[in-house]
Amino acid sequence: MNEQDCLVRTLGLVGVGMIGASIGLAAKRAGLVRQVLGCARSAKTVREAQARGAVDAAASLQEIAAQADLIVVAVPMLAYEEVFAAMAPHLRADACMTDAGSTKRLAVEVAHRHLGAHARRFVAAHPIAGSERSGPQAARADLFVDRPCVLTPVQCEPWALRSVEGFWRALGARIAVLDPDTHDRLFARVSHLPHLAAYALVNAIVSLAGNEEPFAFAGAGFRDFTRIASSSPEMWRDIAIANADALTEALDRLRMELDAMREAVAARDAARLEAMFRHAKQARDAWLATQGERRA
Amino acid sequence: MNEQDCLVRTLGLVGVGMIGASIGLAAKRAGLVRQVLGCARSAKTVREAQARGAVDAAASLQEIAAQADLIVVAVPMLAYEEVFAAMAPHLRADACMTDAGSTKRLAVEVAHRHLGAHARRFVAAHPIAGSERSGPQAARADLFVDRPCVLTPVQCEPWALRSVEGFWRALGARIAVLDPDTHDRLFARVSHLPHLAAYALVNAIVSLAGNEEPFAFAGAGFRDFTRIASSSPEMWRDIAIANADALTEALDRLRMELDAMREAVAARDAARLEAMFRHAKQARDAWLATQGERRA
Repeated sequence: MNEQDCLVRTLGLVGVGMIGASIGLAAKRAGLVRQVLGCARSAKTVREAQARGAVDAAASLQEIAAQADLIVVAVPMLAYEEVFAAMAPHLRADACMTDAGSTKRLAVEVAHRHLGAHARRFVAAHPIAGSERSGPQAARADLFVDRPCVLTPVQCEPWALRSVEGFWRALGARIAVLDPDTHDRLFARVSHLPHLAAYALVNAIVSLAGNEEPFAFAGAGFRDFTRIASSSPEMWRDIAIANADALTEALDRLRMELDAMREAVAARDAARLEAMFRHAKQARDAWLATQGERRA
Repeated sequence: MNEQDCLVRTLGLVGVGMIGASIGLAAKRAGLVRQVLGCARSAKTVREAQARGAVDAAASLQEIAAQADLIVVAVPMLAYEEVFAAMAPHLRADACMTDAGSTKRLAVEVAHRHLGAHARRFVAAHPIAGSERSGPQAARADLFVDRPCVLTPVQCEPWALRSVEGFWRALGARIAVLDPDTHDRLFARVSHLPHLAAYALVNAIVSLAGNEEPFAFAGAGFRDFTRIASSSPEMWRDIAIANADALTEALDRLRMELDAMREAVAARDAARLEAMFRHAKQARDAWLATQGERRA
């Protein structure tokens, strides 16, 4: 990897929420860019990103398409269609594009539908660096350091792939490559399903509580378990819809497991409950052990 | 509260896992006890608790019943029956009892069934100081500091209630009082339901993965969300059965919420999904805000 491959004169951020603004901060800290242009649906968000130092100047989608060497799309999944359609007529033939969305089948499909030949320089990406926080205030220059970034390139120019890969790597990310379908199936399980389960759990507790304080005596376990239920409703609404097929399959499986547990609880079936709990504990502890090794 | 009320010559710990051993460490650090006797199903566990300094000497259930001024039962819920039955014939008329179990209806019911007049000196307690870890190795002298401890006294001698309350307070706990039914209903929601949901979620993911690595690319959200799935299967098996009625009601409600979400995902109903997610986020964020105030 030649260092010049990841040098960008003008970086264009489409969407400057927590992820977009973190990309701006990280790229500037790494000395990768001379100028960062940013746009967002709300002018206030762009001003906040400027105040954080993540963006140098506000720009329109068309200006970003016409001026940026590298464009990063970091908007909710269901806004991709509008964003790609608006940029397409203005794109330069030497600019690369990437994104930071949580589902990749839709990202690739929309790019190929709207960008024509430009789609060969769009390298879909998913940096695994979420948090329940949102907005430019929550941005961090070190958000991507030592975190995986999954690329799902489809029919990309080799030089564009090298360039985008180098960019994410220069932000500190560890690169992995998957096809979009595999990506979406994996993340339906370990990310999208847990988020929906956390939202559903909180709603169930509120509903059970009626007029009582729903979370009286909730402890640390509850706080951690429901942390992701504080995530952006707009972002997760779009992820759920963009990955609806894999997600409904995952929800059906969770329902089967919960039904089996409910049956065992109602039957006071101690052996069956213990076996189910032990199965889960062993699987999670085994995973945790590999995480410890990787961090070490 | 007279300081002598919470001074104990001999503390008897029935069960010296994470909670029991933490009680021993905390009582010794606070200078509340001269001697701590401990028993557990496995001699190895008692030796580990002794090595940690949580227990001075191993003793049988009968010896603890005959010698201790204060007895703390810290065993899985379904072992209460055997423990109370074995101690009953040997108990002193001036000894108090408490416990650390996560369900209180069963604790009170078993005590009243087996202890006769001694039950008037049993003050059921639930220190909210769990962790996914277990065993004496995980014990901490400060485990109860600033944590709630819920007492559910039923037909207790006032002096026994004062004495047990003083003991938990001296370990650092903040005392709350509830009736056993209310306790079990509240904890089915904020503690027992999340634990079962976490176990079910991990099992669903493992099952969906088939022969693939189930937790590839799982991030911080997943780690926190599933932390409680590493909890003791034996302990949670017993809690689920001891609180089966309230827990099945809670599981049914969670299922309704998940079914509604599944339906909205399958229908790509953006407005409905966003409303459900926002409802959960607002409820959790409002709770979190009160937590911040309480800590301050």
